[in-house]
Amino acid sequence: MSSMWGERIKLSVFGGSHTEAIGVTLDGLPAGEKMDWDEILVQMARRAPGQDPSATRRVEKDEPHVVCGMSSDGVLTGAPLCALIYNSDQHSKDYGNLKVTPRPGHADYAAFVKYQGNNDIRGGGHFSGRLTAPLVFAGAVCRQILSRHGILIGGHVLSVGPAEDRRFNMADIEPEILKSLSREYFPVLFPSIRQEMRRQIEEARLALDSLGGVVECAVTGLPTGMGNPMFGGVENLISSIVFGVPAVKGIEFGAGFQAARKMGHENNDSFYYDDGGAVKTRTNNAGGILGGITTGMPLVFRAAVKPTPSISREQDTVNLETGENVKLVIKGRHDPCIVPRAVPALESAAAVAVLELLAQNGKL
Amino acid sequence: MSSMWGERIKLSVFGGSHTEAIGVTLDGLPAGEKMDWDEILVQMARRAPGQDPSATRRVEKDEPHVVCGMSSDGVLTGAPLCALIYNSDQHSKDYGNLKVTPRPGHADYAAFVKYQGNNDIRGGGHFSGRLTAPLVFAGAVCRQILSRHGILIGGHVLSVGPAEDRRFNMADIEPEILKSLSREYFPVLFPSIRQEMRRQIEEARLALDSLGGVVECAVTGLPTGMGNPMFGGVENLISSIVFGVPAVKGIEFGAGFQAARKMGHENNDSFYYDDGGAVKTRTNNAGGILGGITTGMPLVFRAAVKPTPSISREQDTVNLETGENVKLVIKGRHDPCIVPRAVPALESAAAVAVLELLAQNGKL
Amino acid sequence: MSSMWGERIKLSVFGGSHTEAIGVTLDGLPAGEKMDWDEILVQMARRAPGQDPSATRRVEKDEPHVVCGMSSDGVLTGAPLCALIYNSDQHSKDYGNLKVTPRPGHADYAAFVKYQGNNDIRGGGHFSGRLTAPLVFAGAVCRQILSRHGILIGGHVLSVGPAEDRRFNMADIEPEILKSLSREYFPVLFPSIRQEMRRQIEEARLALDSLGGVVECAVTGLPTGMGNPMFGGVENLISSIVFGVPAVKGIEFGAGFQAARKMGHENNDSFYYDDGGAVKTRTNNAGGILGGITTGMPLVFRAAVKPTPSISREQDTVNLETGENVKLVIKGRHDPCIVPRAVPALESAAAVAVLELLAQNGKL
Amino acid sequence: MSSMWGERIKLSVFGGSHTEAIGVTLDGLPAGEKMDWDEILVQMARRAPGQDPSATRRVEKDEPHVVCGMSSDGVLTGAPLCALIYNSDQHSKDYGNLKVTPRPGHADYAAFVKYQGNNDIRGGGHFSGRLTAPLVFAGAVCRQILSRHGILIGGHVLSVGPAEDRRFNMADIEPEILKSLSREYFPVLFPSIRQEMRRQIEEARLALDSLGGVVECAVTGLPTGMGNPMFGGVENLISSIVFGVPAVKGIEFGAGFQAARKMGHENNDSFYYDDGGAVKTRTNNAGGILGGITTGMPLVFRAAVKPTPSISREQDTVNLETGENVKLVIKGRHDPCIVPRAVPALESAAAVAVLELLAQNGKL
Repeated sequence: MSSMWGERIKLSVFGGSHTEAIGVTLDGLPAGEKMDWDEILVQMARRAPGQDPSATRRVEKDEPHVVCGMSSDGVLTGAPLCALIYNSDQHSKDYGNLKVTPRPGHADYAAFVKYQGNNDIRGGGHFSGRLTAPLVFAGAVCRQILSRHGILIGGHVLSVGPAEDRRFNMADIEPEILKSLSREYFPVLFPSIRQEMRRQIEEARLALDSLGGVVECAVTGLPTGMGNPMFGGVENLISSIVFGVPAVKGIEFGAGFQAARKMGHENNDSFYYDDGGAVKTRTNNAGGILGGITTGMPLVFRAAVKPTPSISREQDTVNLETGENVKLVIKGRHDPCIVPRAVPALESAAAVAVLELLAQNGKL
Repeated sequence: MSSMWGERIKLSVFGGSHTEAIGVTLDGLPAGEKMDWDEILVQMARRAPGQDPSATRRVEKDEPHVVCGMSSDGVLTGAPLCALIYNSDQHSKDYGNLKVTPRPGHADYAAFVKYQGNNDIRGGGHFSGRLTAPLVFAGAVCRQILSRHGILIGGHVLSVGPAEDRRFNMADIEPEILKSLSREYFPVLFPSIRQEMRRQIEEARLALDSLGGVVECAVTGLPTGMGNPMFGGVENLISSIVFGVPAVKGIEFGAGFQAARKMGHENNDSFYYDDGGAVKTRTNNAGGILGGITTGMPLVFRAAVKPTPSISREQDTVNLETGENVKLVIKGRHDPCIVPRAVPALESAAAVAVLELLAQNGKL
Repeated sequence: MSSMWGERIKLSVFGGSHTEAIGVTLDGLPAGEKMDWDEILVQMARRAPGQDPSATRRVEKDEPHVVCGMSSDGVLTGAPLCALIYNSDQHSKDYGNLKVTPRPGHADYAAFVKYQGNNDIRGGGHFSGRLTAPLVFAGAVCRQILSRHGILIGGHVLSVGPAEDRRFNMADIEPEILKSLSREYFPVLFPSIRQEMRRQIEEARLALDSLGGVVECAVTGLPTGMGNPMFGGVENLISSIVFGVPAVKGIEFGAGFQAARKMGHENNDSFYYDDGGAVKTRTNNAGGILGGITTGMPLVFRAAVKPTPSISREQDTVNLETGENVKLVIKGRHDPCIVPRAVPALESAAAVAVLELLAQNGKL
Repeated sequence: MSSMWGERIKLSVFGGSHTEAIGVTLDGLPAGEKMDWDEILVQMARRAPGQDPSATRRVEKDEPHVVCGMSSDGVLTGAPLCALIYNSDQHSKDYGNLKVTPRPGHADYAAFVKYQGNNDIRGGGHFSGRLTAPLVFAGAVCRQILSRHGILIGGHVLSVGPAEDRRFNMADIEPEILKSLSREYFPVLFPSIRQEMRRQIEEARLALDSLGGVVECAVTGLPTGMGNPMFGGVENLISSIVFGVPAVKGIEFGAGFQAARKMGHENNDSFYYDDGGAVKTRTNNAGGILGGITTGMPLVFRAAVKPTPSISREQDTVNLETGENVKLVIKGRHDPCIVPRAVPALESAAAVAVLELLAQNGKL
């Protein structure tokens, strides 16, 4: 594993926040698929900071540069697809003291031990949330292929701190809704909650603090019978990539942790034949997966995103050089809430995983 | 993946509820480790049904039979370790109609589509919760090796329906507590809650219904710096095996979904030097993992276990032969709550994953 | 890796020469395939010693015992297929001194260092040639599935010591020939060479010595376009399993090492349209693989099998206890030439690899 | 698989002969290793065409450009190391007709079928021998790390057409010899053979033809006991990467195919204690590997390299558009013998594989 993932669709992510570029290689993509570049840019923009007024003040330009694997008119050749995203905003001076005074909530200390201090600390290096940009590129490619198989992926901000959107009606998710969510900057199901979420974020910003939240993602159009029992299940597959998105600390499928509170007769999803003769379930507490295998109902998962650890408030930490407990004030501008930008990253992780699932099941 | 798992410590689980035997092969184990057979039987007994009066009425005898990989005096040879657990309780007649009338909440329908009806439906076949028995055997072997590296694993029933135990104090978990929990049949931290949980289970049983719950697991003694960024993280590794335990629908690490409700200054774990000069954190919302890498603090995760889908109440389903909506009444005795028995299964999944983690990091 | 292999079709081999049983688990097999048990026994018999008068005097009974994964009428359920082969011929006393006086040409010394002396030395333990029996079972299952896709696999003894059979005419291999070869005990293309090979083997036996040889295998009916460039090539795939057959020290595809002696204009295989409008090549020095991808021509490989290291002659070795150079005389009956029995093992390795190849390419 | 390789040391190769750049990502490298850039350039130069007067007339400039993973003073950070090699020599016009008239001996036809004509045909695209440049970069990095563990890798041209160098004396290979071979452009053991080889190559060039050959590689300093039985053996590991080098059609270890001609008493390597008390073998027909595990003796393998398929002579092929048999004359300048340049590529494949082997065995 590490920064490579997958068996049939292989993903390799590289780079750090302040290296020349970050990038991604995707291997195993089907040849002949024509990419709509504007659609890729839409996804990159959704992840880029500074798009939403309340979210951040830093502006990145994340135009991916294709090195190989795509013809000049945007058709996949079948060879590995590699794209770079050059880094321009490199305030390296901001990160001088972080190597010896690890930031609470960051990978700094664990990485210091693992790499014996040789890791690139600037901007979090390879641990930076910026590494979701190549993942979003990969997802933007994969979702275009998936959409030609009738598979749509969309997510929304389910909560930001105490502000909560409504959940998907898991037994009945309109593909059109996913299509629309998957192009928004701050996607929510219940529009009026967005303002409250932004207010919470702005408050956190003013308090030199940060906020986490939950992202809910859905996939419609999956064929029934994909996946495997036990370790080859769809939940295993998706979680193995979703935890690659920095700041994710939990994942649940369908009713998830709420299922643990239900009685069997509530949680079991009754089967029935719909008007078209298709087998459906009246509820979808399973989130589209039973025994690790797709049921044909929408796949739904939720990911818990912790609050951004980079906050401007003074914090307690240690000085690894002097062996003393010290105070730390992190400089630089930091996004007080990455949850809206995490939506395209999590949709992308799902897109790569679902393409892998199709490939594993001989459906590409 | 499928029913095999791992890179350095490879696990292969096979068998179905009503095949001659179920079993497991573990490859990559360090040679020369002497196994305490009684300790293995303790773990097998914790998972076996019928140990706890309120949990089930079916009695299984799950004595593992070693085929190869262990000397006659219990020392691992380094070659693949294979063990069988013979199936004795085979009421095949109970499952006759399930192939065409899939049980709600079970893998029956998804499996029917995937395997075109060729799957072994008896007792759930390869999807049966009984398949956790070989996993518990594997975990019982791995945890003995881990304990010699000072690594202990223990879990408890955090909730059964509405009854809730207290959580681990994640920043300070006594190894002795884990040692004791890991030998109990119905482990809880706050002893008086056990009675209430049993009452809930008995009520569900009388109502021909079932209950889910949450299991909380902890690992102490892990070296700092194990794991990898992105897809090679410890969360990815553990979740990729934990979702192999049937009925698990969610996993979270550290503060998990609660982290999504916290402010950054609450969720960040401050570093400090303890009296012995070790770097610690005052809280442990990270659950011992930052950036996918161990911090040296206890690793804590929680898994949501859905209510047993096999309930005796009449349920709605379809008849795949006639194409009609029908009623289903599942016969046979079924455990109204598998949560206590899921504890050793989840500890075992963690044990295999942690041994793999050590092997990946050159610590075996 | 280790004793597990594969991504879509996963193979796990376990056991040692003198453990209770040896066995194999195959995961990922397509459900619904009905197995012809007699055909499986034919393959087991071809590998078993004692079938051919000149080859050995030891008689094994290698009837596989299916534990799970197959219905009572021989249909694959799609769940892991596990089979055991019980060990009966256990002359443990013969192997007493081998742990400290490693046999030249055997894994004894390397294994002693790797496993610090904990490995099972009896009969070579997990390194025994007997471990090809579960591989042959796996191959016997896979080849039945392949034959329904029009894919046939057959091999022959190309050489035993100095006695050489003729090579396949690689550009034109009759499927009927492969069908016939794949059921013979001592398959050769040029029948009269068999007698000379047997004579060589008998001479080696009388000289308390042993002989190696070369096995040539062919696969017909492979679709064009299977495989991948670079590390995902068909040659990589096949060699990664073929070197799992003990005693194999080399592999070549098509013209192989002879290609290194040819001029480009000789080695290049000219394309042409055959009468049916199919693209073919006039020669097949590529052995059916170009750029790692199948060309549609027969796949041909050759494997070099070293002489059995267990010979009765006195040999020089060391005593790892006393630190002295000593003489060793290996007792027991040993097969002076395993090459004829290696044919079904190598065909089986190819069968598993080709089924994996189909699965990887979505053709199952 | 495909263009990614490895479990602990992961390699991802991307790009095509005429894309903007080709490149490589290496993940899992140990942090803190300082790279000697000049040594990397030495290896790149050995692979580059045009260095040796007789070999080619095309000049490439293969200076790798590090994107990430290395500090400005050449120290590995532990994050993925990515390097690009820009393509400058792009005579795209030369390749116009190759898509429909596949070149004999090339991947053109197989790739056309696999990718339905979408593959990049220019210069062979991702199948080009130029893709060994990123592999050589990877190997140049890995061998520097290996040398600090006392492990040296070197190879030589064993044969070019009929001209043959002497083989390594496998039981006694001086590390100094490997050090010297691994810096030469046309490495041979018996110096006077080089002239004859060059003469053969020049003759082939004048005849508008090409020549293949055999490369022999050795690795000294490997610890005893690395590797695994069956599919996890060292032979499996090395062959799984070596067949990723285009044009390789065979591999053998130790005595290899010659072992098939030997008697057991000749092929078995007798053990003895050397003066320092180390266990050695008098011969080394095993090539340093028994039972898939290193013996501590030098690891030796040979790879058969087919003649360059791109020859200027008129050849027979098909026109996939018109469905006719046609004549083909390949334009452009082509290397009549790539064998000398294959030496650093094969050494590099071995270097990556051996670093993976150390990582798998906890030795990094």
